Amino acid sequence: MNAQEREEGTQFAPKFDGNGLLSAVVLDAESKQVLVVAFMNAEALTATRKTGKVTFWSRSRQKLWMKGETSGHVLHVEEILVDCDQDALVIYAKPAGPTCHTGRTSCFYRRLDLEADDATALESVLS
Amino acid sequence: MNAQEREEGTQFAPKFDGNGLLSAVVLDAESKQVLVVAFMNAEALTATRKTGKVTFWSRSRQKLWMKGETSGHVLHVEEILVDCDQDALVIYAKPAGPTCHTGRTSCFYRRLDLEADDATALESVLS
Repeated sequence: MNAQEREEGTQFAPKFDGNGLLSAVVLDAESKQVLVVAFMNAEALTATRKTGKVTFWSRSRQKLWMKGETSGHVLHVEEILVDCDQDALVIYAKPAGPTCHTGRTSCFYRRLDLEADDATALESVLS
Repeated sequence: MNAQEREEGTQFAPKFDGNGLLSAVVLDAESKQVLVVAFMNAEALTATRKTGKVTFWSRSRQKLWMKGETSGHVLHVEEILVDCDQDALVIYAKPAGPTCHTGRTSCFYRRLDLEADDATALESVLS
């Protein structure tokens, strides 16, 4: 598949990197808040498409990881968008509960103060 | 730095992976549309913070890549959020023009039809 086909065609041909992964960004379908950013390998992508529940590949644990498998806070897929070179996915989902393991709605609960020193650069934006 | 400090502290301590990279998701600060997903190494992150213009590390070209360096369509940083384990950034930016090299507002211009065969699974959602 050449670049033109990959970018303009109708064929879904996900491009996994050297580690067999692509990036997946999950947003709340309703609020449009970014909930979590992680990776999928081919198996995780297939599971996500088949079950309608967002499934990642955990790089730290080196295993398939269905979001919410222990907490019950699964992410129900509503829509998947694919980028130009097909190496990243944007997934709009309906969360069954807080997405972050810390109990927060989103994993992105801190803002980086662009003026501050690193030691005190993070401030909470979600409780 | 332990997990508790990394997740709950005020210290910005970005966690780069084995390739020295972290994920960066850029959204339009106004429309909240996801524009592009890419990677930053430490140098790209420093450049982004210093210049206020989103700068990535291009894995394919193995070089620093200021978004818009040739097109002029730079992404002006408005806000940066950091996730729980500090290995991903969400950046709200003001784009100076279309973000995608194809001329589209966003790189995510196709939707994956969850029922279709791969050969015909992508449909345009942005012109």
